[in-house]
Amino acid sequence: MIDTWDSVWRGADLATMKVGSADGFGSIRDGALALKGGRISWVGPAAQLPKDGIGRHTAVHDVEGGWITPSLIDCHTHLVYGGDRAQEFELRLNGATYEEIARAGGGIRSTVTATRGASEDELLVQSEKRLRPLLTEGVATLEIKSGYGLDLDNELKALRVARRLGEKYPVRICTTLLAAHALPPEYAGNADGYIDLVCNEIIPAAKAAGLADAVDAFCENIGFTPEQTRRVFEAARQHGLPVKLHAEQLSNLNGAALAASFNALSADHLEHLDEAGAQAMARAGTVAVLLPGAFYVLRETKLPPVGLLRQYQVPMAVSTDCNPGTSPVTSLLLMLSMACTLFRLTPAEALAGATREAARALGLASETGTLEVGKTADFTLWDIARPASLAYQVGLNPLRQAVFRGRPLPGRS
Amino acid sequence: MIDTWDSVWRGADLATMKVGSADGFGSIRDGALALKGGRISWVGPAAQLPKDGIGRHTAVHDVEGGWITPSLIDCHTHLVYGGDRAQEFELRLNGATYEEIARAGGGIRSTVTATRGASEDELLVQSEKRLRPLLTEGVATLEIKSGYGLDLDNELKALRVARRLGEKYPVRICTTLLAAHALPPEYAGNADGYIDLVCNEIIPAAKAAGLADAVDAFCENIGFTPEQTRRVFEAARQHGLPVKLHAEQLSNLNGAALAASFNALSADHLEHLDEAGAQAMARAGTVAVLLPGAFYVLRETKLPPVGLLRQYQVPMAVSTDCNPGTSPVTSLLLMLSMACTLFRLTPAEALAGATREAARALGLASETGTLEVGKTADFTLWDIARPASLAYQVGLNPLRQAVFRGRPLPGRS
Ligand SMILES: [Zn+2]
Ligand SMILES: [Zn+2]
Repeated sequence: MIDTWDSVWRGADLATMKVGSADGFGSIRDGALALKGGRISWVGPAAQLPKDGIGRHTAVHDVEGGWITPSLIDCHTHLVYGGDRAQEFELRLNGATYEEIARAGGGIRSTVTATRGASEDELLVQSEKRLRPLLTEGVATLEIKSGYGLDLDNELKALRVARRLGEKYPVRICTTLLAAHALPPEYAGNADGYIDLVCNEIIPAAKAAGLADAVDAFCENIGFTPEQTRRVFEAARQHGLPVKLHAEQLSNLNGAALAASFNALSADHLEHLDEAGAQAMARAGTVAVLLPGAFYVLRETKLPPVGLLRQYQVPMAVSTDCNPGTSPVTSLLLMLSMACTLFRLTPAEALAGATREAARALGLASETGTLEVGKTADFTLWDIARPASLAYQVGLNPLRQAVFRGRPLPGRS
Repeated sequence: MIDTWDSVWRGADLATMKVGSADGFGSIRDGALALKGGRISWVGPAAQLPKDGIGRHTAVHDVEGGWITPSLIDCHTHLVYGGDRAQEFELRLNGATYEEIARAGGGIRSTVTATRGASEDELLVQSEKRLRPLLTEGVATLEIKSGYGLDLDNELKALRVARRLGEKYPVRICTTLLAAHALPPEYAGNADGYIDLVCNEIIPAAKAAGLADAVDAFCENIGFTPEQTRRVFEAARQHGLPVKLHAEQLSNLNGAALAASFNALSADHLEHLDEAGAQAMARAGTVAVLLPGAFYVLRETKLPPVGLLRQYQVPMAVSTDCNPGTSPVTSLLLMLSMACTLFRLTPAEALAGATREAARALGLASETGTLEVGKTADFTLWDIARPASLAYQVGLNPLRQAVFRGRPLPGRS
């Protein structure tokens, strides 16, 4: 008995998303998956499934058609925040100037105020509303950044909310400390002083409390300088935390190369990345996280250099960037559509970007993101005729069944 | 007893979408709706609700916050079709030329083949998958065009499927005969011959069978000429059917002015509309139906002339254009986002475009589209803090309760 599987899934085609396949999806027509202890024990064509693994306690799921993919992974979100910015959105479309919006309390400052003003429980309730639609799309792993607290207590509060979401819902949450997101009002004119606080107090405290899996920063003309970013990265390294970076979104400050020099997990946005930056990322194995939602909302015209990323074989991930200002997006499937339509990724690149490469961007490449033996049994069965349909359809969620750590989840949440 | 209401809804704010309001939404804070016989009998501030309308059989729904809007109306879809075009989408992104795609059976011809090849029941099953996600967003009225059959039997088959969807689901379906959508292969080189068939056989048969509520055509360099379109419109008029037109999407053939000269309900797409066209539409009361999904998928850069439409007070509707080639879109909420983000409509214009003006584009302005006394009791309760949130959020469906003809619908379908 001891060697039989907990469950077997048969009757669907598989997009394993294994690296280096001919069709980009690692397709296995009429495949089977066998699970044991929440992990994948066997994967291959159903006709080759060893019969002796099926014992009397093995749950055999014979599904009728469809495709199974690894569950989706959203590797860049700012999902925990207070309030929203719908009023600012409306004011701007009604012709208000940036000055008028600022006077009305708009911009990131309004989100900082609302996030600081919310209790931990209130923040949880507000954030759940954004998590649930992602779960209904089969998202099983999700990164959440802080960055709207901008002081010790409120940054830790946001990270605690992120951890609690992972305890309450069937989803693996990766937390990222993004204290260096913006300058808090009480440090106006003193960015270096704030970076001192981040390096000397917030990073050590987040590490000590086990609340941060990684550290991120916003390196931009309207954010922090490369030199300030370097200080944040050095503090992270000192505390044994991997780094990632918001880089080259609005201008080229060579942030991606800086991140690569710290072996960053990822550099994100990258519309203004140049060839040297792409080469540096390739050498370091740093993932390029593409965020078409922000590109769409900001009506950007400068595309990320997908050709360069392909040329140097920089892995590309795709994510929602879920945030209240520049990407109020809670559909990762829609980002597959936008990655293809706006950035001209192929459907296989887009799906790999929300599975295999997103896992890599979180340091979880050996744990999830493909259908391979030994990985966590997180996968999704879709009512589709081919995997490209996930990127082709706009606004359709063809999820039939989500499986999290080997367990079929009840209906759509 | 005879004068009391069937039900009362209180506790939410109302966006009545009444024409001419100061905020564009016709907002009533802390409002109430009273219903009788599936229609709205009273609407106003809850504090002014006459108490004597509440009898012992009146169902009183005290909802806790949120906003009630008229249910959404999707006034331009090609939702009934066979197959899909995911493979073509994939081929193109993988670098295939149009010639290679045509050789692989791509383009509208593949949809015509699949639609002709599907039985009526099969077509129903395939179309339901696209209808359901729209219903989960509270869409209560929806137009469906034929146009992939392109012969007498198959055009009528598609319209019968559309009618059956309206019988099976809680939604009002308006059918539009779009036989003049494309030239069927058997009429290659003989467009006038096909227009003869449309005018002399298909329109009369659709009318006789009660299957068409309106007639549409695709007037474009790659579609039918203005002269052919005029013949279709004359046949429609002869049979007492109102008309609408796909016009000025890819070039300016003065189709909108032609449509207006037939008092068309709407002219749709309109990226290339000029000032004379906008003036003609304004005079005729023809609605401009804007379709940002197709603009997005085709990566168009020429925006519809929203400024001109505002200047001449042409009513603007917003719709999905749900179709397999240029707009595989099944989210009308996402079209509110795209109408604002891509076309710079205000949130109030976008919501009016998917309620009041969409009703007008279907000839149903006196029947639905606003919360006003006498109209059908089709409305939706949303978990939002302000109506602009419906356009601000991307990929979130905050529907809490849909009400169709006075009846609360069970959960999300
Ligand atoms: Zn971000
Ligand atoms: Zn159309």
